[in-house]
Amino acid sequence: MGNSFGTLFRISSWGESHGGGIGVVIDGCPPRLPLSVEDIQPDLTRRRPGQSKITTPRDEADQVEILSGVFDSLTLGTPIAMLVRNQDARPQAYDEMKEKFRPSHADFTYQSKFGHRNHEGGGRSSARETIARVAAGAVAKKILSYDHIDIRAYVERIHDIQAPSIEELPTLEQVESTPTRCPHSETAELMEKRILEAKKAGDSVGGSILCRVSGLPVGWGAPVFDRLEADLAKAMLSLPATKGFEVGSGFDGTYLKGSEHNDLYESRDGKVSTSSNRSGGVQGGISNGEELYFRIAFKPTATVLQKQKTVDSQGNETELMGRGRHDPCVLPRAVPIVEAMTSLVLIDHRMLHTAQCQSFDFS
Amino acid sequence: MGNSFGTLFRISSWGESHGGGIGVVIDGCPPRLPLSVEDIQPDLTRRRPGQSKITTPRDEADQVEILSGVFDSLTLGTPIAMLVRNQDARPQAYDEMKEKFRPSHADFTYQSKFGHRNHEGGGRSSARETIARVAAGAVAKKILSYDHIDIRAYVERIHDIQAPSIEELPTLEQVESTPTRCPHSETAELMEKRILEAKKAGDSVGGSILCRVSGLPVGWGAPVFDRLEADLAKAMLSLPATKGFEVGSGFDGTYLKGSEHNDLYESRDGKVSTSSNRSGGVQGGISNGEELYFRIAFKPTATVLQKQKTVDSQGNETELMGRGRHDPCVLPRAVPIVEAMTSLVLIDHRMLHTAQCQSFDFS
Amino acid sequence: MGNSFGTLFRISSWGESHGGGIGVVIDGCPPRLPLSVEDIQPDLTRRRPGQSKITTPRDEADQVEILSGVFDSLTLGTPIAMLVRNQDARPQAYDEMKEKFRPSHADFTYQSKFGHRNHEGGGRSSARETIARVAAGAVAKKILSYDHIDIRAYVERIHDIQAPSIEELPTLEQVESTPTRCPHSETAELMEKRILEAKKAGDSVGGSILCRVSGLPVGWGAPVFDRLEADLAKAMLSLPATKGFEVGSGFDGTYLKGSEHNDLYESRDGKVSTSSNRSGGVQGGISNGEELYFRIAFKPTATVLQKQKTVDSQGNETELMGRGRHDPCVLPRAVPIVEAMTSLVLIDHRMLHTAQCQSFDFS
Amino acid sequence: MGNSFGTLFRISSWGESHGGGIGVVIDGCPPRLPLSVEDIQPDLTRRRPGQSKITTPRDEADQVEILSGVFDSLTLGTPIAMLVRNQDARPQAYDEMKEKFRPSHADFTYQSKFGHRNHEGGGRSSARETIARVAAGAVAKKILSYDHIDIRAYVERIHDIQAPSIEELPTLEQVESTPTRCPHSETAELMEKRILEAKKAGDSVGGSILCRVSGLPVGWGAPVFDRLEADLAKAMLSLPATKGFEVGSGFDGTYLKGSEHNDLYESRDGKVSTSSNRSGGVQGGISNGEELYFRIAFKPTATVLQKQKTVDSQGNETELMGRGRHDPCVLPRAVPIVEAMTSLVLIDHRMLHTAQCQSFDFS
Repeated sequence: MGNSFGTLFRISSWGESHGGGIGVVIDGCPPRLPLSVEDIQPDLTRRRPGQSKITTPRDEADQVEILSGVFDSLTLGTPIAMLVRNQDARPQAYDEMKEKFRPSHADFTYQSKFGHRNHEGGGRSSARETIARVAAGAVAKKILSYDHIDIRAYVERIHDIQAPSIEELPTLEQVESTPTRCPHSETAELMEKRILEAKKAGDSVGGSILCRVSGLPVGWGAPVFDRLEADLAKAMLSLPATKGFEVGSGFDGTYLKGSEHNDLYESRDGKVSTSSNRSGGVQGGISNGEELYFRIAFKPTATVLQKQKTVDSQGNETELMGRGRHDPCVLPRAVPIVEAMTSLVLIDHRMLHTAQCQSFDFS
Repeated sequence: MGNSFGTLFRISSWGESHGGGIGVVIDGCPPRLPLSVEDIQPDLTRRRPGQSKITTPRDEADQVEILSGVFDSLTLGTPIAMLVRNQDARPQAYDEMKEKFRPSHADFTYQSKFGHRNHEGGGRSSARETIARVAAGAVAKKILSYDHIDIRAYVERIHDIQAPSIEELPTLEQVESTPTRCPHSETAELMEKRILEAKKAGDSVGGSILCRVSGLPVGWGAPVFDRLEADLAKAMLSLPATKGFEVGSGFDGTYLKGSEHNDLYESRDGKVSTSSNRSGGVQGGISNGEELYFRIAFKPTATVLQKQKTVDSQGNETELMGRGRHDPCVLPRAVPIVEAMTSLVLIDHRMLHTAQCQSFDFS
Repeated sequence: MGNSFGTLFRISSWGESHGGGIGVVIDGCPPRLPLSVEDIQPDLTRRRPGQSKITTPRDEADQVEILSGVFDSLTLGTPIAMLVRNQDARPQAYDEMKEKFRPSHADFTYQSKFGHRNHEGGGRSSARETIARVAAGAVAKKILSYDHIDIRAYVERIHDIQAPSIEELPTLEQVESTPTRCPHSETAELMEKRILEAKKAGDSVGGSILCRVSGLPVGWGAPVFDRLEADLAKAMLSLPATKGFEVGSGFDGTYLKGSEHNDLYESRDGKVSTSSNRSGGVQGGISNGEELYFRIAFKPTATVLQKQKTVDSQGNETELMGRGRHDPCVLPRAVPIVEAMTSLVLIDHRMLHTAQCQSFDFS
Repeated sequence: MGNSFGTLFRISSWGESHGGGIGVVIDGCPPRLPLSVEDIQPDLTRRRPGQSKITTPRDEADQVEILSGVFDSLTLGTPIAMLVRNQDARPQAYDEMKEKFRPSHADFTYQSKFGHRNHEGGGRSSARETIARVAAGAVAKKILSYDHIDIRAYVERIHDIQAPSIEELPTLEQVESTPTRCPHSETAELMEKRILEAKKAGDSVGGSILCRVSGLPVGWGAPVFDRLEADLAKAMLSLPATKGFEVGSGFDGTYLKGSEHNDLYESRDGKVSTSSNRSGGVQGGISNGEELYFRIAFKPTATVLQKQKTVDSQGNETELMGRGRHDPCVLPRAVPIVEAMTSLVLIDHRMLHTAQCQSFDFS
């Protein structure tokens, strides 16, 4: 259960790390959207392993096939099914994990919950599952681009290497110009160094990603359970390795007093704006027209190439040497995934808002 | 939209701050649960305004009426409707807010989204809406108590007054022994003082709440979108005034290396356990049998009794003097609300887990 | 479970026949709809018991109270909660039913499923639950009236008294002009006589209701599971006492050959129309702009004032004499209920269609 | 939208008649179910075209591939994705239909709703979509077989050739022994003749399918909107070419009086039973332990190999000669589809019932 996301633009994700492949079905995509593999592949390529020396050497082209929902290069309004076959799978690399639970992985909880698991490459708990999200998110992102909405995530901190605050929304090119996906180039270099140090030591590092959205209109979101920030929080905490989410001023803002924290309204260019943006672009769960921004904490990768104590499936204490091909730091590859999940949340709220608030005239 | 929460134990919340009242309907409650007003009222009373000098003076008994779903003191398995009438409403106190948008409130976004709003007391954006959550959560909490699951939230930090770490799960009595709901009494006193200072200055403070759950079995949760922590993140970010969520080691944990962060498995009393708990009780979205814990950031209350710049509904810049009866700090009253939302997430995952994984025998 | 209906215009129904009352919450209603009790009460009054000598003598005014979601006579876009208190309840009339299962009622299945039930007046299985549907349906019907959509149900057959086919959509006044709600007055008289005969004999009769909808645009509905006729079928079979549903030519149409059955397209007034309407206004699950029509079978009321064999809760065979105040024929009062459910299906499909197909421009 | 079905055992269907193929994703399947292609293929083969002279000559093996969710021949509890590639597609056969709307097909409504369509073979409106249902239904059916639930559909009437009533549930072998899937062999022969006559005349015939389910326990279903018969009605009316649904006594039963129609309870073998079964196995929306049975009306196939009047996409009146490879009668191939949809409804209600009513002990 729990493999679908969204209400109106609803995706269903499937697939394991080793097996037939990873796929996704989008139900609810509007018709007549120009769509081809070229719209999807770039973000998959940004996510794919083997793209630089700071990512896992597993080499997958992650080439996507669109199986349905598009005809004559336009969406039909029917489900769009997409498939990425697994290629560079090495199931034998995981033989030891069949019996021994990897620390801070999902092996033990999967085994306990389901009584059965695909131990090869983590099965469904593998980050390969996020291929489904990125493929679907690319469709959402394209739709949102017609509304001039720009979604930009980037790495803000690796371990304790923190980029300075950047005022203007960085361009995609700036983000993509370094393998760490930190648009501040000097910091990016230090980050890369830190990741390579960890890699060399058979260790791993974490950090935080900032996601910023410009161009959002006022009014997307909902007052109570389905607040925009609540849906974003769920989307982000549904990603592997995430441990925290904050919107706007976040945890730091709780050290301010109300008189310091409030965003005062002002009239700018005939439009209601706020003079500061500690709210992070949402008030009462609804976008207020300012830049939406939020931060996600990613823990250091659980797989470390060191010997660790653990327990086997019989409950006996044992040791396990980390193997497999893994990223010493997941953040650079997580950037397009964060953007994808953001796009999925936003397109759904756009459609919900239109349905309830923008299609009736009772005057 | 967005006024329902949960899949199997599903609640629908309704009501505005000023009007007929606040209510909730629970669909999916198991039958034959002993239930009466006495099970619900205590948490509502913990939430109600006017309970101490550090909360708003608005005086509401918030007496709940169970309208359906219970017969002969046992639940029927049919919807449980509960109603709390509004009593101490003073709509005229909000006259100025009819035309002027309160900074960092939902007035502007509601007006923009819906083209119409109930400006009295914030209408649906009022924290009175959380009555619905607390009432429904009390039912969920009672069900979970049969599984010996203990859900305990408490205030951990107010402004910069931080309680020391507490190893053992505090008792309800410890939490309730101070008006701040911080179980560390010396810290609680400092917190109270800080809140009263802010109140006196017409200002407000925020902070963080920690929620801890003991007694969870292994296996609740789901691998992908509906991870336990993802649903908790959504639940918490759906609460008014929340700006952040972190589970386990959270943001701080991202400063560790993988070799430092991993929770190693060990066999304790014939049961697989972890020697540390940076995961916070979940791995791969599924409970691992350790204590579940997470932290929520609450911003300082937006209403401050000071003059602030703002804009009116015609877009003209103006000033607004904060009025109305408000809490200088929402955290103490948010404690039962956090527990309620946690209970709702957990009961739903319990039912989902049973349905998929515990009711079939294919051998 | 199963007490909610709809995706975007979603209602949650609650309440038992004897107890606090019957209520409904609508989530997703568009904002700024002019709404007051006067929009809801007329359909509740059409549904209420005691309205004529052919209905149950239980006398309930069924006065509705709107508890939330409306301010200054306009909807807010927030949940609309409505409540009808139970008044003329006589629980002692049901004492015998506490132990004995009434034939063809839900007593046995409720008891078996839930292990507990409210035996007074049938509890949740009472047709009083349909108050919730009628109240919510009245809101939907009002919204649809702005699109000039006219929903008209009427009694077509009682027992074997069948009204002739009526070409033009009857007016509401024509339907309401007789207590049977059959707009063909001579037939209506015969029907009334047949119902009174059954009543006198302590017996009951069933029949069929036809529902017709004019003014539907082309394009509402969906291709696969959520076909317009599928959602209507579910809506109708969710009503107490229904045993069948057919759309367009229905069961009779299956005696035709394809060449006889097909609706041929023609161009009428510059608009694509069909020369016949055996499809009943839907093709491939989507409205085609012709009149939508469907028929519902209602069985004879299960309560007969005669002695019947049955079994008690211990499994002992026994006899039960029908008691309580019941309708000898449910169809006249079911007419507004059918209209309500139809309205709820249609408003939801309108909103879904808008969200997916009418709010994007990719050119 | 509307391409998913079910709440806990939820399927998502995708694919067009001509294109990458037809597929389905099942989310919520219990883990540890032994499952292989051999469990799925037989029902797909019963559904496939080209199986006899009374079905379309389009020749598709409809070989299914399981892409995920199964490991070591057991389900994982993760999504099961299945894919059937299209093979014998002849898109050019549909060239004329690009511009001309086929009478009583979905061409016009699809074009109007989506503004774009795949005209080849009907695209998503093709009955090939039901492959997804049959594949998913086969999994559900297998699970239900562990509960000794037997789901048997068969053709009861073709045009006006009606099989006599059959008391005992026919075996699968009896149903499969004739190409018409009518287990009464003499009637089956007449039916086959009637179909061949229609085929020869370039015409088509309809009829009705009866579906019977034995072995259902008491208690599956829900009281209000999600009544068992309501969900079955939706499931059946979601199938192409269906025009009606009736459960138990159906439309015919409305000609009886209450005293004639009621099913009296009796104690049989220490179990509460009914002496008749006009209810059709459900009371108040919940299974009562008797045989569940219902009937579905299928209209004559819309494609007839005759010249018919129609309109083109410019609104000009024209004529269209029916082409393509089609069934002169859909009922024989619809039998496994009806069983599949029935299985999907039942497994979902089983899981819902377990979750709410069978997994708590409050004593």
